[in-house]
Amino acid sequence: MSHDTAHRPARGKRQMKLGAFLFGVGHHGAAWRHPDVDPRAPFRFEYWRDLAQKAERARFDAVFLADNVALFGATPEAISYTAPVYTGEPLTLLSALATHTSHIGLIATVSTTYLQPYHVARKFAALDQLSGGRAGWNLVTSGSDAEAANFGLDHQLAHAARYAIAAEHVAVVKQLWDSFADDAILADKASGRFYDPARLRRVDHAGDHFRVAGPLQTGRPPQGHPVIVQAGSSDDGQALAAATAEVVFTAQQSRAAARAFAQGLKDKAQALGRSRDSLLVMPGVSIYVAPTRQEAEAKLARLQAFVDVAGALASIRTFLDWDLTTVDLDAPPPPPPFTQGWQSRQKLFYDLALEQGLSVRQLVSRMSAARGHLVLVGTPAEVVDELQAWFEDGAADGFNILAPIFPAGLDDVIELVLPELRRRGLFREEYEGATLRENLGLARPDAGFPAPLSPQTKELVG
Amino acid sequence: MSHDTAHRPARGKRQMKLGAFLFGVGHHGAAWRHPDVDPRAPFRFEYWRDLAQKAERARFDAVFLADNVALFGATPEAISYTAPVYTGEPLTLLSALATHTSHIGLIATVSTTYLQPYHVARKFAALDQLSGGRAGWNLVTSGSDAEAANFGLDHQLAHAARYAIAAEHVAVVKQLWDSFADDAILADKASGRFYDPARLRRVDHAGDHFRVAGPLQTGRPPQGHPVIVQAGSSDDGQALAAATAEVVFTAQQSRAAARAFAQGLKDKAQALGRSRDSLLVMPGVSIYVAPTRQEAEAKLARLQAFVDVAGALASIRTFLDWDLTTVDLDAPPPPPPFTQGWQSRQKLFYDLALEQGLSVRQLVSRMSAARGHLVLVGTPAEVVDELQAWFEDGAADGFNILAPIFPAGLDDVIELVLPELRRRGLFREEYEGATLRENLGLARPDAGFPAPLSPQTKELVG
Repeated sequence: MSHDTAHRPARGKRQMKLGAFLFGVGHHGAAWRHPDVDPRAPFRFEYWRDLAQKAERARFDAVFLADNVALFGATPEAISYTAPVYTGEPLTLLSALATHTSHIGLIATVSTTYLQPYHVARKFAALDQLSGGRAGWNLVTSGSDAEAANFGLDHQLAHAARYAIAAEHVAVVKQLWDSFADDAILADKASGRFYDPARLRRVDHAGDHFRVAGPLQTGRPPQGHPVIVQAGSSDDGQALAAATAEVVFTAQQSRAAARAFAQGLKDKAQALGRSRDSLLVMPGVSIYVAPTRQEAEAKLARLQAFVDVAGALASIRTFLDWDLTTVDLDAPPPPPPFTQGWQSRQKLFYDLALEQGLSVRQLVSRMSAARGHLVLVGTPAEVVDELQAWFEDGAADGFNILAPIFPAGLDDVIELVLPELRRRGLFREEYEGATLRENLGLARPDAGFPAPLSPQTKELVG
Repeated sequence: MSHDTAHRPARGKRQMKLGAFLFGVGHHGAAWRHPDVDPRAPFRFEYWRDLAQKAERARFDAVFLADNVALFGATPEAISYTAPVYTGEPLTLLSALATHTSHIGLIATVSTTYLQPYHVARKFAALDQLSGGRAGWNLVTSGSDAEAANFGLDHQLAHAARYAIAAEHVAVVKQLWDSFADDAILADKASGRFYDPARLRRVDHAGDHFRVAGPLQTGRPPQGHPVIVQAGSSDDGQALAAATAEVVFTAQQSRAAARAFAQGLKDKAQALGRSRDSLLVMPGVSIYVAPTRQEAEAKLARLQAFVDVAGALASIRTFLDWDLTTVDLDAPPPPPPFTQGWQSRQKLFYDLALEQGLSVRQLVSRMSAARGHLVLVGTPAEVVDELQAWFEDGAADGFNILAPIFPAGLDDVIELVLPELRRRGLFREEYEGATLRENLGLARPDAGFPAPLSPQTKELVG
């Protein structure tokens, strides 16, 4: 199988890409209180292994893990109401999952704000190697004071500064991945040469934020570059994504807004000389599905009943710097402060409340259901109609699926939604390739070394 | 099984602790050129899995992985002669190995020089949880310009500065591990409390080098603290080890020097209020063993024949800042520069050459065999006689075993040395406990929260 050509389904029809976004015991804010959920399950590796293997059997493109580098809440009291998302750390978990899966992609979130590019490049190269070319890096910046305080700062960095650092960071990481040609390793016992010195190089990057000599230990990743994923939807985030992202994970509430976002991003990428297909936009979508619409709505309602409004407001205050704890719960929300934190998410929630005339209480309920991502509630046909409309309208190249609770919510998607997608030819029956890059149809980056000499040429010049 | 008492072998006799130090395709400098060795094997996970499972079946206390954060050599030409030690990264590899083993400890080297304490605390807590309490952290400082250049510096930090940073770093890491009581997680669906706020706390550390708020995500590690291992043998290194190390991995060439080192370190620990048993000294030892002495010597000689002297000298120059490339190979070496780099290793090699009257060529040969660690060559009885003498003389609590080549060199130790150790009652038949800490006989640290209220007291005060 060639590494250089994008892989398409055999019949040539464009199909959706699907991520399985794993997240604690579920994406609903009160998932851990649901009677069917074991809130301690994430402390057991078998829980994650079973979810990843289930997603692989269903032919998802990837499992996707979020991350922050803090527990949120200023006091033990404020912290105590929130279940942690990961009981360990995403790269640790994906390293273990790599050896219990064979085809599914493994995407970990790592922030560029508090971890040096050499470490990031090395860890993703190691995961890519361990998994045989299935690693993806969801590049984020850290936009909270709680995280800043774990790394010597009083406050988060300014939004623009975070993105300037991120742009230089990812450029260095890519140079480190390119510090070896794919054929750099000779392992020639006779000559004692382990590497071909003509096929490796230093990086010697010296920029505004980083100086890195390289080369990276110890060879090129199987995918050339692990797939670059980004989630920032602010202006700065979009500019970075247009330049460097291959997959963009975004929160969008309406098809029209999603289409404008996706096509705008592809326009920006194209203006930078990239093809529109080299950047896949995958909105998050939380799915409540059942054979009847009534049952699907009951699934959502059951979870909404577990939402602790005071706890949710405390969480909104810490995550978004938006203090709704002292306002009238049954009136419209006041504007958020538009701080240096999650600008795009602040705007998304405020716009949603304005457009739909939501009270604070109703907004909190919507936020708890999927943290600002699209929520679809209905029968398999209704859910798939909506996904298909987004996909065919240019609003999405695929979706990152947020199950409300695990494992039941993922089972629902696999058993009810995927068969309907497949009936319509919208999702794969089998993996197209062996690497995440191949399954996503993304080209493999070239490291920029001269083409190796053919044996005949070698003989002539040697 | 109690977590609070040290575990002793049933018959009460003190037994050796043994580490299996995994390192590329072998610890001999020319291992990768040996005909029995596959130099590309470390690129396959199965290679590491098989070695770790083999070591576990043999009841080693732990597998041990070294680390640096650079490839050494100023130019591609200089780099090209050295096979990499790990093709990925130690924590990535141990995370995967955790789910393919059940009892053996997993010790990874991570430097305190270029990775923030929050990241270090979190990664080892995650590995400890994933492995059910089998993680160990080999705390080192980074003493090379090659590493410094990957993290924005022109030169390594001064030796004393590196150790001052390390001392504060490990203190913060321990506070992060202690930011939760063992019983902090309630996961109480009825009240909506995930954590008991009285059983978690912020860290709020503000020191000379780090400011860290905490608490750590997301609960206390199963061992309380992953086991703290250290390898520094300089004065600064010994002071840090006496205060914080539970296992000290050291390079020692003679039993007398090893005894002085081990007992001196235990004296220092005792002066700080620690028990002598709370710090285990484990010298590295490379073993060439065969049924006859002649065969054992032939194993060493065979590998020595593959040493490329020019390549070895280049490596010594980069690692130790000791330029022997222009001196007479058949004369004694000139003194090393005693730079800010590996001070104790510079001294060890120079003393060895002086004491034994070695030429540069002979010294290079000794260095290639095991990088300064003890080399034992002989029959099983001869090797075990020496190990036993060190153990009973107070020179060692156990050993970190360096196999010259993998897997054959590890097989030799398992098939020839361990049976003889067991015949003499010097090594375990079965693991004593489930965690690394239990198997090493080390007490589990208390997080320093008040004792939890008993149900009766709760009722009285509640």
